[in-house]
Amino acid sequence: MDTIKSRAAVAWGPNQPLTIEDVDVELPKAGEVLVRIVASGVCHTDAFTLSGEDPEGIFPAILGHEGGGIVEKVGPGVTTVQVGDHVIPLYTPECGECQFCLSGKTNLCQKIRETQGKGLMPDGTTRFSLNGEPIFHYMGCSTFSEYTVLPEISLAKVNPAAPLEEICLLGCGVTTGMGAVLNTAKVHPGDTVAVFGLGGIGLSVILGATMAGASRIIGIDVNDHKFALAKKFGATDCINPNENDKPIQDVIIDMTDGGVDFSFECIGNVKVMRSALECCHKGWGESVIIGVAGAGQEISTRPFQLVTGRVWRGTAFGGVKGRTQLPDLVERYLNREFQLHDFITHTMPLEDINQAFELMHQGKSIRSVIHF
Amino acid sequence: MDTIKSRAAVAWGPNQPLTIEDVDVELPKAGEVLVRIVASGVCHTDAFTLSGEDPEGIFPAILGHEGGGIVEKVGPGVTTVQVGDHVIPLYTPECGECQFCLSGKTNLCQKIRETQGKGLMPDGTTRFSLNGEPIFHYMGCSTFSEYTVLPEISLAKVNPAAPLEEICLLGCGVTTGMGAVLNTAKVHPGDTVAVFGLGGIGLSVILGATMAGASRIIGIDVNDHKFALAKKFGATDCINPNENDKPIQDVIIDMTDGGVDFSFECIGNVKVMRSALECCHKGWGESVIIGVAGAGQEISTRPFQLVTGRVWRGTAFGGVKGRTQLPDLVERYLNREFQLHDFITHTMPLEDINQAFELMHQGKSIRSVIHF
Repeated sequence: MDTIKSRAAVAWGPNQPLTIEDVDVELPKAGEVLVRIVASGVCHTDAFTLSGEDPEGIFPAILGHEGGGIVEKVGPGVTTVQVGDHVIPLYTPECGECQFCLSGKTNLCQKIRETQGKGLMPDGTTRFSLNGEPIFHYMGCSTFSEYTVLPEISLAKVNPAAPLEEICLLGCGVTTGMGAVLNTAKVHPGDTVAVFGLGGIGLSVILGATMAGASRIIGIDVNDHKFALAKKFGATDCINPNENDKPIQDVIIDMTDGGVDFSFECIGNVKVMRSALECCHKGWGESVIIGVAGAGQEISTRPFQLVTGRVWRGTAFGGVKGRTQLPDLVERYLNREFQLHDFITHTMPLEDINQAFELMHQGKSIRSVIHF
Repeated sequence: MDTIKSRAAVAWGPNQPLTIEDVDVELPKAGEVLVRIVASGVCHTDAFTLSGEDPEGIFPAILGHEGGGIVEKVGPGVTTVQVGDHVIPLYTPECGECQFCLSGKTNLCQKIRETQGKGLMPDGTTRFSLNGEPIFHYMGCSTFSEYTVLPEISLAKVNPAAPLEEICLLGCGVTTGMGAVLNTAKVHPGDTVAVFGLGGIGLSVILGATMAGASRIIGIDVNDHKFALAKKFGATDCINPNENDKPIQDVIIDMTDGGVDFSFECIGNVKVMRSALECCHKGWGESVIIGVAGAGQEISTRPFQLVTGRVWRGTAFGGVKGRTQLPDLVERYLNREFQLHDFITHTMPLEDINQAFELMHQGKSIRSVIHF
């Protein structure tokens, strides 16, 4: 069995610090690709799994799913990428063949969903081990490793002119928020938008809304200190629910003569999801859920909200098909239609990765990016 | 004050039988029209208000909102209809001027919403009285009266070749169900559809789905005896939730290899609304709420249902703009694209109207139509 050594951060169990190890990485099998990760963002979803609250969480595992890398070696039968290609790993693959890919209606390719959910490659095995003991993959990506193995269908080949240290953010957060606006909601010039939660996803939504030409972008957060950055990204108004006597949906309805055209929930709080729906304009307002709620939690509202014309929907990875649409997003970045560096508040080597989680818990970072 | 006498069924209070009276009807003022009602369906919404559960219910009132009639006299300034025109009263008017009408995104004209909700004409007064005491309008229509007065914007002028005794059903139920399919959901040929509740609305949804070319139309009801008529209307499968061990959404997901493209809730039961959403296909399935739930009741689901691509929406009057779109529906009826007589299980004179409510309560009628 051919393997190489790779420096990686291993998660051993809920709430345990990651440890840096020299793991063994098996070389790619048929349809698989070995990628050298150059940079990886640390996302709230990594922290969610590390907290033990993710019902699909499996340990020991190599976390990380927001990466940028270079193809190091391809397995038999791989045709769409070659050694040296710059790639972004995709936790939502795109096989182009399953019922979902062929529908033209969704980006939720189901080809490898079962094995991916179990921390395994499509053949049901793992490529990572330490001292002979298997280590699981994570979201089909495991970007907290210098070398990782992915299915060919889980790689977006992108323009190598783009710095991987920045476009790695397109592997999750920024694409999710921007895609929610441009793909899922399809915001039009002049539309009004409300954004609940001004973390990385919320800022990406604001960015997407400016690209779509929204006339008014209202940011909502309980932390006033997030307002300055939100306005730098393009928010026209920022409001704090705790500083208003009325329910926040009523405040927004008053501000906008009846409600917004589109709202986005970027937190994962089911109560906020309700506010986000109910601040939409009667007759046509649409609310998009982006945040991931805790296990078992439910959203609710009066059905009258929908019967009078509001629409409730959700999005995953911004509705973006990774292999066919993500390369275009990188081109738009290179054309300076949007910037990414304002998202990156910290950079650090892999050895300091626990600090990235700590900064996130303290609310001090938008994105920490690990450089290998 | 010029008035005429009109034979009308008056509702005096919750759960009291209607009484037939010779009420006084004031002649139309500016922008108003006197209509002689030829026929009127008796709808569940009339029964809902008569039960006292409608928070907007006001008494004494002349109920009825599913009518067909002929213009008898027009008030000053009326230009779009003239004496002798055949018209369908609209509880959802279309002024063509308000923010909602101009949006191009909704049929929920708000021009006269406030006064209509209070049982009054747009000038804040009523045209009905008995022995000098005012009687309120209902849903802006009050079709249980031989003569009624409506705002000009609440009348759809239709082809006089169509029998008013049948097309009166387009004033509410049939348009609501058919429009939910054709306007709100926009079902395409080959799509799969689930219809929850096989009363008049559910049958109208089935009819709309056949017109849209749906490949499979699954009817769901707890009463097996409704299945024969549903199949006559075009249902391909009928299932009874009480005859299955699994939750009905799981039964439908199994039947359809992952769920339906569209579902419709035609009952007003918030638990069924959840089943209707959750039987939709991951990635793209859309559920449309048509039924009106009781005051204060709420829908709920896990947000994961939406994040994985399902869409939850609602519809009122099938999203149909009454003055611009209802005349076309009448033409399609005249072109035999659909039939209406199978909805009409009973006809009776106004004097027997309490019997129509009784038949409805007993579940023995689809539609009773009152002939004047």
